[in-house]
Amino acid sequence: MSFDLDPVLERDTVPVTSLALCRVLLMRDRRFPWLILVPERDGVREIVELAPDDRGTLIEEIALASEALMRLVQPDKLNVGALGNVVPQLHVHVVARFAADPAWPGPVWGSGAAVPYARQELDDLVATLKVLF
Amino acid sequence: MSFDLDPVLERDTVPVTSLALCRVLLMRDRRFPWLILVPERDGVREIVELAPDDRGTLIEEIALASEALMRLVQPDKLNVGALGNVVPQLHVHVVARFAADPAWPGPVWGSGAAVPYARQELDDLVATLKVLF
Repeated sequence: MSFDLDPVLERDTVPVTSLALCRVLLMRDRRFPWLILVPERDGVREIVELAPDDRGTLIEEIALASEALMRLVQPDKLNVGALGNVVPQLHVHVVARFAADPAWPGPVWGSGAAVPYARQELDDLVATLKVLF
Repeated sequence: MSFDLDPVLERDTVPVTSLALCRVLLMRDRRFPWLILVPERDGVREIVELAPDDRGTLIEEIALASEALMRLVQPDKLNVGALGNVVPQLHVHVVARFAADPAWPGPVWGSGAAVPYARQELDDLVATLKVLF
């Protein structure tokens, strides 16, 4: 079964790991520790379009991503969202938020321009995240 | 077991129904058909803090709210989000989005001021929504 990641997600993220249902991606934006879960199911745009078993897996993988971010950075709050207004392929954002981050208390989506990680910083972060899943 | 709805959610919404886990609320904002699910679990701020069984119920109730909105208005997209940067009590937004709505393609959160429903319009909408759950 083939699965093609949306090219915008491909461009804006780096792969972290693969879980039972979802690919786990890290956004290339050092302003926010920001994971994206993409269920490997072709043509699905909405959570409600997933089979019930897949929905159960998705929310457990949201919990895993939440725990990984909590262990990584001890955020003040987690933000979880499935929007898809720009990229229709179903994907779920799990973002570590801080009261001192540049978008607080607003959402990260649509908030300014991404700030890229340095190469070594990105490699180190992905290596650390792999261990947390 | 008592459960107290956050006063900001109480002020900004009207009750629609109660499901196995969540209260279903309608936002007082006629710009967007916008439901909010509040798990009746005291002191919970994050999805990951819910018990696994409750998480499974939550995602099925997100699916129910999605289906209700799809039958109500046939949206172009659903937006699902648990943010809680302002109101810490765990609550999940399920919002019907249209390419012609005033926040598209941005998120609804932090986008301008709510536009209240007329009284009769609100009563009719809540009555219709009750049938859809």
